[in-house]
Amino acid sequence: MLNFSSLPSEIRQLCRDGKLDTPTPGLALGFVQANLVVLPYSLAFEFLLFCQRNPKSCPILDVTEIGDPEPKIIAPGADIRTDLPRYRIFRHGELIEETTDIRPFWRSDLVAFLIGCSFSFENAMLNSGLPVRHVEEQKNVPMYKTNIECIPTRIFSSPLVVSMRPLPANNIVRAVEVTSRYYKAHGSPVHIGNPEEIGIRDLQKPDYGDAVTVRDGEVPVFWACGVTTQTAIFQAKPELAITHSPGHMFISDLKDEYLTL
Amino acid sequence: MLNFSSLPSEIRQLCRDGKLDTPTPGLALGFVQANLVVLPYSLAFEFLLFCQRNPKSCPILDVTEIGDPEPKIIAPGADIRTDLPRYRIFRHGELIEETTDIRPFWRSDLVAFLIGCSFSFENAMLNSGLPVRHVEEQKNVPMYKTNIECIPTRIFSSPLVVSMRPLPANNIVRAVEVTSRYYKAHGSPVHIGNPEEIGIRDLQKPDYGDAVTVRDGEVPVFWACGVTTQTAIFQAKPELAITHSPGHMFISDLKDEYLTL
Repeated sequence: MLNFSSLPSEIRQLCRDGKLDTPTPGLALGFVQANLVVLPYSLAFEFLLFCQRNPKSCPILDVTEIGDPEPKIIAPGADIRTDLPRYRIFRHGELIEETTDIRPFWRSDLVAFLIGCSFSFENAMLNSGLPVRHVEEQKNVPMYKTNIECIPTRIFSSPLVVSMRPLPANNIVRAVEVTSRYYKAHGSPVHIGNPEEIGIRDLQKPDYGDAVTVRDGEVPVFWACGVTTQTAIFQAKPELAITHSPGHMFISDLKDEYLTL
Repeated sequence: MLNFSSLPSEIRQLCRDGKLDTPTPGLALGFVQANLVVLPYSLAFEFLLFCQRNPKSCPILDVTEIGDPEPKIIAPGADIRTDLPRYRIFRHGELIEETTDIRPFWRSDLVAFLIGCSFSFENAMLNSGLPVRHVEEQKNVPMYKTNIECIPTRIFSSPLVVSMRPLPANNIVRAVEVTSRYYKAHGSPVHIGNPEEIGIRDLQKPDYGDAVTVRDGEVPVFWACGVTTQTAIFQAKPELAITHSPGHMFISDLKDEYLTL
């Protein structure tokens, strides 16, 4: 049976067997979960360059060989076509389908990018006694488009998308210290305090995910978010792109500590 | 006149005017110097992926747009075709020419990669009171091919090339601490102690650079080295590749501190 201490390979097998179709937060706690982006090889350089130029939003953990669905570095033996609980298929930037198995869409010219995710630093925050509000409230993290532009490439550009966690003022320095170590999982915050300075009008109306309670005296703290890649794909409108469905991540064999300096 | 406190832009201008053709260690101290690799766009994804998979050897600082010689991120306004003191031209992996101006070789399909260099962490070592033997002895750093294989891509593979600095045993922990912060300039060592464990037979016979004195009681400490990219190019034999000449680096507008976490 599935439980919080299941191994990554057990969870991937359940996905592969069609027996798991839920969001992955809390599963295989302590192991690195990853965002997935699949693109044709013709766009692979430009996308890898976009990630290289914007490493806080898009920290690359693994890139598969052309046509090969196995992420050999972070999960040897896994198959990214079947081992995530749920996927989204985009044609020319438009979401056309959600599915639990992308083998029907697979092609010999596709390349998969696995990208670090905030779950890794949230575990570290919780282990350090820092509150993570959306976990307390059992919600998805609130995410917002900002007025900060990512460094573009010829083909990919995007506003920086951030996630927000409210913290008591006396927890902020510790949160910066704890999360900055996880430089392959978005690392330190990109902004602390006034949302309007980065173009966010209303914290209670996130562009993605759920609003969470911000208590009196708490300060909103913002981290770069992997959803930035999906905005970049929406703007570039490639003929085919495949991603995980929000919250339905790939669970790798790496321990969170691997993502730190 | 050129001196140790010259600005990067002044040194680049001297190169551009054909007035500087010397190695760059010690110039514009405190500013980031970079390895240069120029390749056709057709190989750009595979090379960027090789660097992404081997970040300790090949930490990417900037990648120019196809056909554009300006490294917009680390030195806006610079021209990598003229602003280094000396270059090497390779055809099918063979060195065919050294030159001080690569404009005659430039093509609209070329991409330039700027890669972090050990000068940044050596400055930090010296500032921390750690000895850097080849600097004391006014030599080039000794470099060795190891029996450690880089993570390959379909096209690029290479043994890891390392540089070596001998240290008194009671300096080693501090050297790890100081250099590990510079994760975009090779970061922490890859090996401490017995050279034979990583396939090095004789410290006094480096594969590149100069041998340095290793005193009684000193321990050899090895860091990943950017020359790894040149070995990878030698093995891949691209129809055209251009690099800096050893020690003749590109001087960027970034301060060393930019390369730290």
